[in-house]
Amino acid sequence: MLTMLKDGGVCSPKGFTASAYTAGIKASGKPDMALLKSEKAARCFAVFTTNKVKAAPVLYDKSVLEHAHFASAVVVNSGNANACTGPQGLADSERTATLVEEQLGLAPRSVLVCSTGVIGHLMPMDKVEAAIPHLVKGLHAGASDEFGTAILTTDRVKKSLAVEIETSMGKVTVGGCCKGSGMIHPNMATMLAFITTDLGLPLDFFAEFRADISDSFNAITVDGDTSTNDTCILLANGVSGIKYEDLSISEKSEFRAALMTVMKELAKDIARDGEGATKFIEIRIEKAESHAEALKMARFIGTSNLAKCAMFGEDPNWGRILSSAGSSGVNMVAEQTDLYFGDVKVLEAGRPIACDQKKLEEVVKQKEYAVTVVLNIGEASASAYTCDLSYEYVKINAEYTT
Amino acid sequence: MLTMLKDGGVCSPKGFTASAYTAGIKASGKPDMALLKSEKAARCFAVFTTNKVKAAPVLYDKSVLEHAHFASAVVVNSGNANACTGPQGLADSERTATLVEEQLGLAPRSVLVCSTGVIGHLMPMDKVEAAIPHLVKGLHAGASDEFGTAILTTDRVKKSLAVEIETSMGKVTVGGCCKGSGMIHPNMATMLAFITTDLGLPLDFFAEFRADISDSFNAITVDGDTSTNDTCILLANGVSGIKYEDLSISEKSEFRAALMTVMKELAKDIARDGEGATKFIEIRIEKAESHAEALKMARFIGTSNLAKCAMFGEDPNWGRILSSAGSSGVNMVAEQTDLYFGDVKVLEAGRPIACDQKKLEEVVKQKEYAVTVVLNIGEASASAYTCDLSYEYVKINAEYTT
Repeated sequence: MLTMLKDGGVCSPKGFTASAYTAGIKASGKPDMALLKSEKAARCFAVFTTNKVKAAPVLYDKSVLEHAHFASAVVVNSGNANACTGPQGLADSERTATLVEEQLGLAPRSVLVCSTGVIGHLMPMDKVEAAIPHLVKGLHAGASDEFGTAILTTDRVKKSLAVEIETSMGKVTVGGCCKGSGMIHPNMATMLAFITTDLGLPLDFFAEFRADISDSFNAITVDGDTSTNDTCILLANGVSGIKYEDLSISEKSEFRAALMTVMKELAKDIARDGEGATKFIEIRIEKAESHAEALKMARFIGTSNLAKCAMFGEDPNWGRILSSAGSSGVNMVAEQTDLYFGDVKVLEAGRPIACDQKKLEEVVKQKEYAVTVVLNIGEASASAYTCDLSYEYVKINAEYTT
Repeated sequence: MLTMLKDGGVCSPKGFTASAYTAGIKASGKPDMALLKSEKAARCFAVFTTNKVKAAPVLYDKSVLEHAHFASAVVVNSGNANACTGPQGLADSERTATLVEEQLGLAPRSVLVCSTGVIGHLMPMDKVEAAIPHLVKGLHAGASDEFGTAILTTDRVKKSLAVEIETSMGKVTVGGCCKGSGMIHPNMATMLAFITTDLGLPLDFFAEFRADISDSFNAITVDGDTSTNDTCILLANGVSGIKYEDLSISEKSEFRAALMTVMKELAKDIARDGEGATKFIEIRIEKAESHAEALKMARFIGTSNLAKCAMFGEDPNWGRILSSAGSSGVNMVAEQTDLYFGDVKVLEAGRPIACDQKKLEEVVKQKEYAVTVVLNIGEASASAYTCDLSYEYVKINAEYTT
């Protein structure tokens, strides 16, 4: 049984501590550095942006994880992405990791680095260096909230949660935390996510982790833009004393469900917090030829400005949904397609049908609802999660300065 | 030598007449039906939307052109897309064509039909039928403007032009006209375009026409959404008495340039008139591995909401351009890439360089400018044409009702 923990986060699983500090990187004077530490070296899996322009910390972390699949800590800064900063940027990421390793007494190349913020500025290393002793000193087990706050940029709310499952060998906890609200699109957009668990995980669990990402963090879209810094890191420290290999088949699938719950809820929170978003919409594709095709279409519709503007305007403009579905490149037959807003069927076999207009209006006025496209050509389904496109999105992104 | 004709349009080439009428399809009471006729059956090439959801007139025209590559007239309505209207919609398109054929004394299946407007409503055929006699009666050679106005929907301006070239056998004229401002994306978006010429064209010129479309109508993007009705029709009636086959090699290339000029200028006018647009931006990719790759990246950047919002905010946010380039799927090496706003180089080998900030500010305050990404990995280049993303875009598309 899966239990949601009150005020849960990255420190909920056993053996994790964290801290946060205001280093002065953000002009706002808000907390902008954070540290997450495991009491013993944790099995570490990470998925990074597919953008060909990768920020220095992404390049650094990839080089570390190429040779080992363990990490003991992650140091994060917000306010500066350390992207397009050349060899100096890479040296700065490495120096940041090294300072943390030295002050925590950890082995070289056992600390990962994440950055998020503006692109093209060198890191203010004097501020970073001055902050590290405070981060190290401040580590404590009740710091999920502090950590979750210090990693934010344009986010309006922090995004943390943790769940617990009961196995025959005892409790296992999965915690998580993420940041992201603009430049968000499948394939690790301007997003940082940190997932922790006190279960021990084998090396080959990476395949499962990747698969779960495709239906969680890679199923959300705010604006179709991907970024230079996106990273999702899973740390499994085994401090519960329980190993994945020792779980029964049903317990294994319960753990997968717990991990998926944490990742999917965090992902949905990003879409809910999309820049300028007033609504959270699930785009669900059913009876498609394959899961991959369904996900592709869902993501495509979730990125349509026309659809997103209609959602903001509370207009059940099914023509835009259908047209977007048709241009997604996914196989469909218009004359076989049904479409729903919430529970209200508006289209049957490609043509509008008489429906309860009052109920339809109520659906599109909701803060959260689903748009379902039923293709009727196969048995697969998938969902993407998106938000509407509002005046506020344009304002945020027109006024933001490099 | 290529001469731009004053007040040119679809009726500028010899042997074309047109007319327009207010049938009452548009609630606004503006002209909403138009007819274009050639005095003799014209060689006809057409390119249609790649959307899997195709409107009835697209299905009808495709079926006509499958068997013949000639057309004598095109009847167009704005205000109703006749899309998602099932067998009745198809019957309505056919009936519209047939009525025009009968009243003009033309052979069956020699008239094409185009529609643009809202999706999912049956055509008000009583209004259409009542309008056709007026359209037929109203045909005249000075109707380029009337025709260009009656095909508009949310467009703010009409888009018409014509150019003339002098050959050893006499003058050849190319005219054109189009509509489109939202739901505009490469691959025939909510766009109708009509190109006319009095040159005679052979059947195998279709390959050239398709190629020219890729660098003109398929190089523009307003919002990344493609539509159900998009059509570009070329009518070549040979009334000048001159045939393409009889032109010299240099005259042939002059004709290609004339055709390209008409199509590219019309395409640019669509981007300039993008819904809510305040700026027109050329995204130019240079020194790419291939033309196709360059065009793909240019189109991808041209669709980035983040880049488009920055343009609206007059913010030279090169980080967003570079990040978008990196996520386009096109081969690039960040450390080899240069970037310019207008003439101002802001990035060299992937890193920001000191530049004249005052001059840079002047560039981004212009109504029209180019953003150039130089990849330095090959010799190919291509451009896409886009507009900024403004509050007005959201307003137009939030308040628009199906």
